[in-house]
Amino acid sequence: MSSHRSNPPTKYGIVLFPGFQALDVFGPADVLNILSKKTPLELSIIAETLDPVSTRANLPGTATIGQRVVPTHTCENPPTDIEVLLVPGGTGTRDSERTQPVIDYVQKAYPALRYLLTVCTGSALVAKTGLLDGHEATSNKRSWSWATSQGPKVNWIHEARWVTSGNIWTSSGISAGIDMMYAFVASQFGEDIASDIAIQSEYVRNTDPKRDDFAQYSG
Amino acid sequence: MSSHRSNPPTKYGIVLFPGFQALDVFGPADVLNILSKKTPLELSIIAETLDPVSTRANLPGTATIGQRVVPTHTCENPPTDIEVLLVPGGTGTRDSERTQPVIDYVQKAYPALRYLLTVCTGSALVAKTGLLDGHEATSNKRSWSWATSQGPKVNWIHEARWVTSGNIWTSSGISAGIDMMYAFVASQFGEDIASDIAIQSEYVRNTDPKRDDFAQYSG
Repeated sequence: MSSHRSNPPTKYGIVLFPGFQALDVFGPADVLNILSKKTPLELSIIAETLDPVSTRANLPGTATIGQRVVPTHTCENPPTDIEVLLVPGGTGTRDSERTQPVIDYVQKAYPALRYLLTVCTGSALVAKTGLLDGHEATSNKRSWSWATSQGPKVNWIHEARWVTSGNIWTSSGISAGIDMMYAFVASQFGEDIASDIAIQSEYVRNTDPKRDDFAQYSG
Repeated sequence: MSSHRSNPPTKYGIVLFPGFQALDVFGPADVLNILSKKTPLELSIIAETLDPVSTRANLPGTATIGQRVVPTHTCENPPTDIEVLLVPGGTGTRDSERTQPVIDYVQKAYPALRYLLTVCTGSALVAKTGLLDGHEATSNKRSWSWATSQGPKVNWIHEARWVTSGNIWTSSGISAGIDMMYAFVASQFGEDIASDIAIQSEYVRNTDPKRDDFAQYSG
């Protein structure tokens, strides 16, 4: 049960682009925020510029409301010591122009990372870099056809809450990122700590990466 | 099943203060963001000033990392047509000086609201106004003693995922706000729409307000 590392990662980064999905970011970030009460952590928010980034994408058929989040670093001038990078999804992943700086940054940053995590269609963005080629990975079920088409050499796993392949963790749609982050914290800091954060957060975890209640809704 | 209103509320507001809990806000907000793809909505973010508000409270023993969110309005100059106001909790609720502008705003805004919603220790903030007096309400289980002490005339319900009393909805800790918001959307827009958003979000709902897996952890 206590298979966690003696040297768990403390330096985290999250990339943002217009039209990122709010819960893809703040589900996992809230777990880290609570963890930071016990363990000093760093968390950087990295985007194309330092301007606030909206959850709203300017694309047809997408959300008409949004909230704006302030980055701490740009893709051109990111922290160089990030150990764990999280890539969210969202309707903004369909905007190839606005996501390109983030995709380029992820590709450059990967070799120095200990772990790369994606939520929802964040795996589609990472798939474009080729970093997922030959890896098992998963993605959002409603966007399955589009997401998987971004990485024809990826071994896409359709029925999974999240998938671990080497040092890359990918989760299914939106809320699945929360379960993945609890599993990640358990693997690095120990199950006791993950469990205590879930109780504080009054969150009922799915601890089985293979249990996927949404695979049937594939689109 | 289709007991929803013919005139569901479309104008929403969320109040922020330093040290608000990220998931208290972005769990429910993400449900509304997705809803806004189908139904035009407005969502205002109201805080003491227009400066970005951090999830980090400057209080001992609290999170050492945080994310900053940009308000759209101040408590002094809020939109006057908000129908549904959501008050999050978080460790920042313990800072009576920094929460006072928000508390004053909620008290002034309430008579014109159709619904007031709280998540986690947001109910402790609202309890200070007296608006919950005589109402049934719930709150975060780990912070139960402190939260309930803020409203001695409130009929606090210990075992509940969320509680509805008149036009006031209060939820238990952090993640419970997501279940409450799905139930609220179901009541106003219909269960079909709430269910479809949950499938898009790959979220396993707790649809029973009386099912509370965390009442046993009361602190």
